[in-house]
Amino acid sequence: MVSEKMKPFMANNSAIRAMFEEGKRMAAIYGSENVYDFSLGNPNVPVPEVNDALLHVINEGEFNVLHGYMSNAGYEDVRQTIAESLNKKFGTSFSYKNLIMTVGAASGLNVILKSILNPGDEVIAFAPYFVEYNGYVRNYDGNIVVVSPDTETFMPKLSEFEEKITPKTKAVIINSPNNPTGVVYSEETLMELAAIMKKKEEEYGTSIVLLSDEPYRELAYGGVEVPYVTKYYHNTVVCYSYSKSLSVPGERIGYLVIPDEVDDSELLISAATIANRVLGCVNAPSLMQKAIKYCIDHDITVDLEAYENNRNLLYNALTEYGFSCAKPDGAFYLFVKSPVADEKEFCEVAKKHHVLFVPGSSFACPGYVRIAYCVSYAQIERSLPAFKEIAKEYGLTD
Amino acid sequence: MVSEKMKPFMANNSAIRAMFEEGKRMAAIYGSENVYDFSLGNPNVPVPEVNDALLHVINEGEFNVLHGYMSNAGYEDVRQTIAESLNKKFGTSFSYKNLIMTVGAASGLNVILKSILNPGDEVIAFAPYFVEYNGYVRNYDGNIVVVSPDTETFMPKLSEFEEKITPKTKAVIINSPNNPTGVVYSEETLMELAAIMKKKEEEYGTSIVLLSDEPYRELAYGGVEVPYVTKYYHNTVVCYSYSKSLSVPGERIGYLVIPDEVDDSELLISAATIANRVLGCVNAPSLMQKAIKYCIDHDITVDLEAYENNRNLLYNALTEYGFSCAKPDGAFYLFVKSPVADEKEFCEVAKKHHVLFVPGSSFACPGYVRIAYCVSYAQIERSLPAFKEIAKEYGLTD
Repeated sequence: MVSEKMKPFMANNSAIRAMFEEGKRMAAIYGSENVYDFSLGNPNVPVPEVNDALLHVINEGEFNVLHGYMSNAGYEDVRQTIAESLNKKFGTSFSYKNLIMTVGAASGLNVILKSILNPGDEVIAFAPYFVEYNGYVRNYDGNIVVVSPDTETFMPKLSEFEEKITPKTKAVIINSPNNPTGVVYSEETLMELAAIMKKKEEEYGTSIVLLSDEPYRELAYGGVEVPYVTKYYHNTVVCYSYSKSLSVPGERIGYLVIPDEVDDSELLISAATIANRVLGCVNAPSLMQKAIKYCIDHDITVDLEAYENNRNLLYNALTEYGFSCAKPDGAFYLFVKSPVADEKEFCEVAKKHHVLFVPGSSFACPGYVRIAYCVSYAQIERSLPAFKEIAKEYGLTD
Repeated sequence: MVSEKMKPFMANNSAIRAMFEEGKRMAAIYGSENVYDFSLGNPNVPVPEVNDALLHVINEGEFNVLHGYMSNAGYEDVRQTIAESLNKKFGTSFSYKNLIMTVGAASGLNVILKSILNPGDEVIAFAPYFVEYNGYVRNYDGNIVVVSPDTETFMPKLSEFEEKITPKTKAVIINSPNNPTGVVYSEETLMELAAIMKKKEEEYGTSIVLLSDEPYRELAYGGVEVPYVTKYYHNTVVCYSYSKSLSVPGERIGYLVIPDEVDDSELLISAATIANRVLGCVNAPSLMQKAIKYCIDHDITVDLEAYENNRNLLYNALTEYGFSCAKPDGAFYLFVKSPVADEKEFCEVAKKHHVLFVPGSSFACPGYVRIAYCVSYAQIERSLPAFKEIAKEYGLTD
């Protein structure tokens, strides 16, 4: 009954989702207070102003406009507001025509990959990376090509990257601030990356699209800048989501930016708009689109302090207990070195202490684990004795 | 830049959407009062109680539950409520496990087709039909096989259907009440259809899935019954949308029902849940899921009287002016015979009178046009002199 193409997905179903389901199961048995679930990037910091935005647009909007069909790319006024807000922040010059509202960044990635990939085309990702990319690329018969991780800095290995670009390379995916490491790519890194891509485009006479997956754009701490990628490379397409900046991952709202500088820009915008429809999304959820406009008009965004406090508490405790981890500048993850080579064993040991996190092999980087600290400060505090016990078990601390 | 697979979509971009965009353009020039746009199935009857539902769940819900990730199949309580409501109405025996919340029926169709289709598999549709199905099937390298229309009754031609089932037939799509004809399949028709499919399954030793696309399920007039398809055929999957029953097509909310009776039911449910994630939807919009539960708990649905009045006004006027059209029992469309063989010419003539509707060739049924009467009663009244002028131009009336 099930298609051949779905079978590998089912065999390797998301370890993250499996852990999330396990967490719910354990919480039902032991009580949610006694299970320390760090598995899923499900934001825990409410943004009550989003509800104000929703109430406002529901009360003020006309029913059939608010909940009705619009152009497949989304409401023009919403797209224009986002374009102007990006222009103001980053000195870009987008108009509503460069924006396509999508069902989150995951759907945006599917839409753009459907628009550009031919069977056998290659898409490069830098390990560690969000392995759902594999599925998105396989959906359109593309092949993912992985650049191995630099486990010192978790910055992209640019020499290996250059070697792996071939005439079949159609796209490169970057994700900064990064899931799972929390690293932020500097302007210098982006300029080097762009220079390599331009050189290879000229060498092969191809167009190589840089897909900037940006659900964590606003989540950077201590004044770290997250450069806007379209300024460094002409063939950049931005895949954005409000899941994290407004704590609304369930609502499925985001957008694509396809700048005028992209090769065949008008054609690609048109293809992506049609792909959004043909993949069955039709358009991004209408009420949320209007709420997003209100949030931008009123400068509404998540309070980052809670995440920064979480990061500091957990990072300081874990390193004190002897765990090894690069301090992240953004997102809401710690990528911690496993005390044993097989990090899945580490995950199992932690689970016995009711601590749940995700093996690095789910990010093409075995030997590490991802700990999502988008949970309550109190949960982190409660979990620390368990982390200490685990550290003791591995002889990292007394 | 654009993939080969997208190119045919771009060459044949939706005539419906093109007409919708044309309508917006003309409204900007001539004023929306003076353009009679019958092109898009965009419901015009507000259901203000949906806003009450939204306000309630926003005010009562916990932020991170209301807007957060849940299982990819959707909230269990929402799915259980829908299952019980179906069981009560149709005597079925679903539980939440049989339901997967989707980003509308269009996404639901994509999810199930991705779950079952291998390249080269055939999917049968009955003309006239919503040609977006072609794209959904092509997304997964399937081939659409069309049963020609019975232009007397617009009911499925079952003898031709039986001949067209092959060992490669993986699915059959039906849509009752029908877009674009408004016909409703009787229990007898469904039983005959089911008997043919069962016979062919046995003959070929295959599983053939009956996809029941049901966005218009509740839109039936004059007491006409719309039978629940899962009761007649074991391998039925229902693709439902709230777009029409709650007038919220922009919100992208619907579900799949995969009954226990379906072959490999558990495996298929699991595949569809993963397909929902891997296609990038991840889950159906969370706030709307919760609002749907409230709407079911409070028996909220669109007032059908407005559509029935529209149907009667337009049907009576058009037939009085000499146009020929089967009286529809459901949905909100009239499928009218073109007074000239080339119905696209008919559409162009109508456009000169500021009347917009869609050629039947967009539904694999040339020689007819679809008129969507989900507009205000006043718009229909204002448009009647224009329809009369068009009828005069073709010598149908004095």
